[in-house]
Amino acid sequence: MTDLFQLAAYEAARRIRNGELSAYALMRACLERIEAVDPQIQAWAFLDPEHALAMAAEADARQRDGAACGPLHGVPVAIKDIIDTEDMPTQCGSPIFAARQPLEDAACVAALRAAGAVIIGKSVTTELASLTPGKTRNPRDLERTPGGSSSGSAAAVASGMVPLALGTQTAGSVIRPASFCGIFGFKPTLGFISRTGVLMQSHTLDTVGVYGRSLQDIALIAECLSGWDGRDEVSYRRAQQNLLAPLEQDFAQPPRLAFWRTPAWPLAEPATHDAFAELVEELGEHCRTIELPAACDALPTHQGIIQSAENAAWYGDIYDRYSDSLSPAMRERLAKGMQEGARSYLEALTARARLYRHMAEVFERFDAVICPAAPGPAPKGLETTGNPIFNALWTYLGVPAVTLPLMEIDGMPVGVQLVGPRRDEAHLLRTANWLVKHLSA
Amino acid sequence: MTDLFQLAAYEAARRIRNGELSAYALMRACLERIEAVDPQIQAWAFLDPEHALAMAAEADARQRDGAACGPLHGVPVAIKDIIDTEDMPTQCGSPIFAARQPLEDAACVAALRAAGAVIIGKSVTTELASLTPGKTRNPRDLERTPGGSSSGSAAAVASGMVPLALGTQTAGSVIRPASFCGIFGFKPTLGFISRTGVLMQSHTLDTVGVYGRSLQDIALIAECLSGWDGRDEVSYRRAQQNLLAPLEQDFAQPPRLAFWRTPAWPLAEPATHDAFAELVEELGEHCRTIELPAACDALPTHQGIIQSAENAAWYGDIYDRYSDSLSPAMRERLAKGMQEGARSYLEALTARARLYRHMAEVFERFDAVICPAAPGPAPKGLETTGNPIFNALWTYLGVPAVTLPLMEIDGMPVGVQLVGPRRDEAHLLRTANWLVKHLSA
Repeated sequence: MTDLFQLAAYEAARRIRNGELSAYALMRACLERIEAVDPQIQAWAFLDPEHALAMAAEADARQRDGAACGPLHGVPVAIKDIIDTEDMPTQCGSPIFAARQPLEDAACVAALRAAGAVIIGKSVTTELASLTPGKTRNPRDLERTPGGSSSGSAAAVASGMVPLALGTQTAGSVIRPASFCGIFGFKPTLGFISRTGVLMQSHTLDTVGVYGRSLQDIALIAECLSGWDGRDEVSYRRAQQNLLAPLEQDFAQPPRLAFWRTPAWPLAEPATHDAFAELVEELGEHCRTIELPAACDALPTHQGIIQSAENAAWYGDIYDRYSDSLSPAMRERLAKGMQEGARSYLEALTARARLYRHMAEVFERFDAVICPAAPGPAPKGLETTGNPIFNALWTYLGVPAVTLPLMEIDGMPVGVQLVGPRRDEAHLLRTANWLVKHLSA
Repeated sequence: MTDLFQLAAYEAARRIRNGELSAYALMRACLERIEAVDPQIQAWAFLDPEHALAMAAEADARQRDGAACGPLHGVPVAIKDIIDTEDMPTQCGSPIFAARQPLEDAACVAALRAAGAVIIGKSVTTELASLTPGKTRNPRDLERTPGGSSSGSAAAVASGMVPLALGTQTAGSVIRPASFCGIFGFKPTLGFISRTGVLMQSHTLDTVGVYGRSLQDIALIAECLSGWDGRDEVSYRRAQQNLLAPLEQDFAQPPRLAFWRTPAWPLAEPATHDAFAELVEELGEHCRTIELPAACDALPTHQGIIQSAENAAWYGDIYDRYSDSLSPAMRERLAKGMQEGARSYLEALTARARLYRHMAEVFERFDAVICPAAPGPAPKGLETTGNPIFNALWTYLGVPAVTLPLMEIDGMPVGVQLVGPRRDEAHLLRTANWLVKHLSA
């Protein structure tokens, strides 16, 4: 029998809806798991077990009173600590925000609560969602980084402390930790999930993403989070998204995958090269290796310029007023960003549409691009969160990306990343589900 | 009897539609007027009388063949020479583009032709729609500048060479020349008219505008130019705009005007101070003087940073490759723009929404803001095109602005500028019409 804490979110929600399980019992199981494993992993920036249990009990009471159950009714979700919560502090991994208690939930947290989810606590982020690591360790090997910046969210889901979590990605902050911790991570199209109430680092890159231990769970939570928000300039209008139901629909003919090495390829470890060569061979007729014009080599560079420049602008006030409270690495990073020129910034911005056209042509011929989610397994040590280069180019293009824990190298997970065209999350997740089934068949 | 060349566009279109006047006769009258006065004024970058007459004859032939007449059928319109025309060169006031023949009409030119207008020729622009003057002189005083950058368009309409013209504004390039030449000028909301096929200088500021000798004519041509265009990132979807019909509708109670001195006030001439004091007094209960928070003083500065930075990016390639063909002033301006930092650029950009809220509050209590269209009459000499400071702040905010030739100082015109909230051009033009009638009553 599966322990309660290992239950998929989808299954837990079903049981709670049917009265077979209480939100309270599920929350207690998660908190017990946290008690058992978190002293080593350190995934939490804020956790109040009493409060979490009280919220779960409230969910049970609402259900008993006959309230309609949302799709996540009673399911615990962890929130990266740069996302505002009205009942918990939001410290952004920095002493500058040590005393910060938001007055309102972020739009994505409000959407989760509206779907019935119970916010369990705030998960560790790197300093201001940037490079300086927090305290979290990789559940698969405590001597390794869990990746970042959504370190706590990925580690908590991977270690069974919570079935679902929110992260954010500006370069590789959702996909890389999922790859390192061996779980599913999903960064949707820029603007798919509202960023109102989320610490802004880069308004043309920042994207809210999700973690789960199955594609079903990813689709379930992403469905609840989709929605237009006029307060977020990258948000776009759309019909109610259906992600879960299409997931299991059969393909009339198997999807076509395009293996692209990406400009990051030379930075991948030899073992990753070998593992992907094997994977492509195994996929046979389902996968073709493609080349893209040399112009696409500049994708990570463009992302870097935009992130650096926008970060300097959004954190400019922090830098001016609280420089002493920043880590030396952060200070240096922002100082460099302050030097970024408007011309190169604007050129990086305007190149986006031009470069996306190359990708759009690929997506006319293929269902998804397949590539590594990271250069290799999580690096040893806790001084770095690893290299986001295999993610940065996709974040720049604003396309949806999902990582699947389908590979191991030296006993550590490495994610297989699938990327699709903008604004078609359903098709990407369905293609990913086909791949998971195909490889486990 | 009014000479044909003096005919309002609205009246000319009516007569042509009714068969009382031919497009050919009207074009001939305009060309004769050009022959008479243009040797002094020099409004044209390209003019081929044979071609213009042939196009007018074609319009007449279409009408005889029973084709439906658009609202501008047979009416000549001048096009600023940074706007592409498939049948005429587009030289952008620079030797760099001396041989440039576009393959396609700009979207706004296509819209005019679809409405039946006959493109008479290309009007002089300053160098690359920036500060270095072209050859055009002010029709009201040949020793003065007509203003810029839409110099030829404003001068041609003011001197009766053509009833309507297109200009563009990044700081004050539509409103200022209209003020200096004594005609009506209208810069609509950012994105009201498509910029596809127009030389881009600054993608968050550049706005296509129009010139005419009456508000009716302004409303008529603006109505034909309104439209969504997916190729222009600032274009927005809207219903078919009705601008002409509402113009004459009575107000249940007279509109309320807010006189705001603007941060540019100290740069206005003493005579302009006096003239506006008189105007405000004359308006009495219809106008209240308002103050705005000190933060609004930064509006022209923000516009300057954005224009400088974006201009450097959009003209970067020209600067890198054809620096020798630029005027020293343009070269210097671009070199300065290259130094613009991304942080201050982004801060100027993000301040826009915050500062617009102050203005939006004003527009909740008043129908329009009233202020000078320029610091004073057109400066003497042809070395400068005058100061755009009374326009730059409105261009930055993306709001619609119209200038009305209601004042004279030392025998030279000075425009009264009315500004309204974004995306309500109809109400602004109707308020302007009320003011024109009220002051001439």
